[in-house]
Amino acid sequence: MTRGRLQVVGVGPGDPELMTVRAVRLVQAAKVVAYFCRHDRPGHARTIARAHIAPDAEELRLEYPFTTEISVANPAYHGGMGQFYDECAHKLAQRLDKGQDVVLLCEGDPFLYGSAMYLFDRLKAGFETEVVPGIMAMNGCWTQAHLPITHGDDVLCVLPATLPEEKLTNWLEQADAAVIMKTGRNMPQVRRALEKAGRLEDAVYVERGTQENTRMCALQEQEDSVPYFSLVLLPGRKGVR
Amino acid sequence: MTRGRLQVVGVGPGDPELMTVRAVRLVQAAKVVAYFCRHDRPGHARTIARAHIAPDAEELRLEYPFTTEISVANPAYHGGMGQFYDECAHKLAQRLDKGQDVVLLCEGDPFLYGSAMYLFDRLKAGFETEVVPGIMAMNGCWTQAHLPITHGDDVLCVLPATLPEEKLTNWLEQADAAVIMKTGRNMPQVRRALEKAGRLEDAVYVERGTQENTRMCALQEQEDSVPYFSLVLLPGRKGVR
Ligand SMILES: C[S@@+](CC[C@H](N)C(=O)[O-])C[C@H]1O[C@@H](n2cnc3c(N)ncnc32)[C@H](O)[C@@H]1O
Ligand SMILES: C[S@@+](CC[C@H](N)C(=O)[O-])C[C@H]1O[C@@H](n2cnc3c(N)ncnc32)[C@H](O)[C@@H]1O
Repeated sequence: MTRGRLQVVGVGPGDPELMTVRAVRLVQAAKVVAYFCRHDRPGHARTIARAHIAPDAEELRLEYPFTTEISVANPAYHGGMGQFYDECAHKLAQRLDKGQDVVLLCEGDPFLYGSAMYLFDRLKAGFETEVVPGIMAMNGCWTQAHLPITHGDDVLCVLPATLPEEKLTNWLEQADAAVIMKTGRNMPQVRRALEKAGRLEDAVYVERGTQENTRMCALQEQEDSVPYFSLVLLPGRKGVR
Repeated sequence: MTRGRLQVVGVGPGDPELMTVRAVRLVQAAKVVAYFCRHDRPGHARTIARAHIAPDAEELRLEYPFTTEISVANPAYHGGMGQFYDECAHKLAQRLDKGQDVVLLCEGDPFLYGSAMYLFDRLKAGFETEVVPGIMAMNGCWTQAHLPITHGDDVLCVLPATLPEEKLTNWLEQADAAVIMKTGRNMPQVRRALEKAGRLEDAVYVERGTQENTRMCALQEQEDSVPYFSLVLLPGRKGVR
């Protein structure tokens, strides 16, 4: 019996029309569809791909053991997450071993800070894999905000807001263009870092980009309590002719 | 009479199946399709979208006045390009003024170093615009190479190979993950910069990612003469658990 194939499929930042033609084709053909989610939510990647999932497909919900209840600063988080990913990989491997293909849905692009990478890393040695790129949150946001991000030889830095404030400041001083991801609860320090780097005025805040309830404004006009699906854009500094 | 709408549409890095559902829909409906190309070539973005262009659509070829014949180091290049973009914008404006919508095709994502930005910047004040994000060359390449690019709080730097060698070296020393674009004729200095930054061993070379004749290998095994459609990937340094 041949083993199944793991298909890691990026579904883009929110708008279902921003799925690629290949992503749609693979989801439609899938007999097993897996995705990460909170225990009390449908799962964001699943919501995006929903219209294409066959009614008789098996859905594997991979429920995060904790989200806001425990801090990432807590060492238990990391040990716990490692074990969680092991269990998820095991669930997928059971289907793959039986010869079933498994589509693992992932928000945005699977390989930019995607949880799917942790399953890919665990399963790639044992199974054939295919990875389908997705529109990332940042491109969804900068196109929707009508903000060309890099011209000429601008350098673009993609920065997680979880970095220490000093490092974040340092990167913002050097970068031409920047995207700050994982803003969520880290907005107070994101704002301070932008201010210290002298770049607060140019920063654009985008919340739930390409989704139904998108909001965007100058960061200066935004308060610090922001949802998980939000990021900050800093367009490049080189002029255009 | 209402004015037409400018639709700037990213078509991804090469594989037509990596177009988004929205890009396909807009191209199919387009009565006027514009794209940049060399005078002796069909145009890369057009090749990607070809199957979806209506047979009776008007095609506006925007032919670069010079490509390899004149160096970007030559000041004439910049003045010349500015004038070229003015002329292109004028051609599009003629259709838009008549009330025709215009789809402007763009490789990858329109707002990451895309020529389409120069027309968007010239036309946005006068016309309604819509921008459709595209899969960028880098995500096409890192997924095809099976290289997760950023984990945890890795910083990703997108670097044009046209930067001065010293700056490039400096960025490569600091970045966790990096993508070097616009490699083309700049490979000798890209290699020296990676070597000085102590990161040559980890660099992966990808040529014509997601296209029919993709090639990829460790950069150490690649010689310096590379085509325009090539880039270098440096995956992040943080471990995965
Ligand atoms: C774990 S990362 C995943 C990134 C994703 N793989 C991608 O390619 O964009 C999650 C972060 O992406 C950003 N994000 C994801 N979707 C978003 C959206 N629709 N609008 C704004 N930010 C978003 C937020 O900063 C969030 O903290
Ligand atoms: C002017 S930039 C345009 C980038 C594009 N807008 C994007 O979103 O990726 C052109 C550079 O992109 C890279 N590139 C574009 N397509 C590629 C492909 N299929 N494979 C490898 N590199 C590619 C090369 O480094 C090239 O010099």
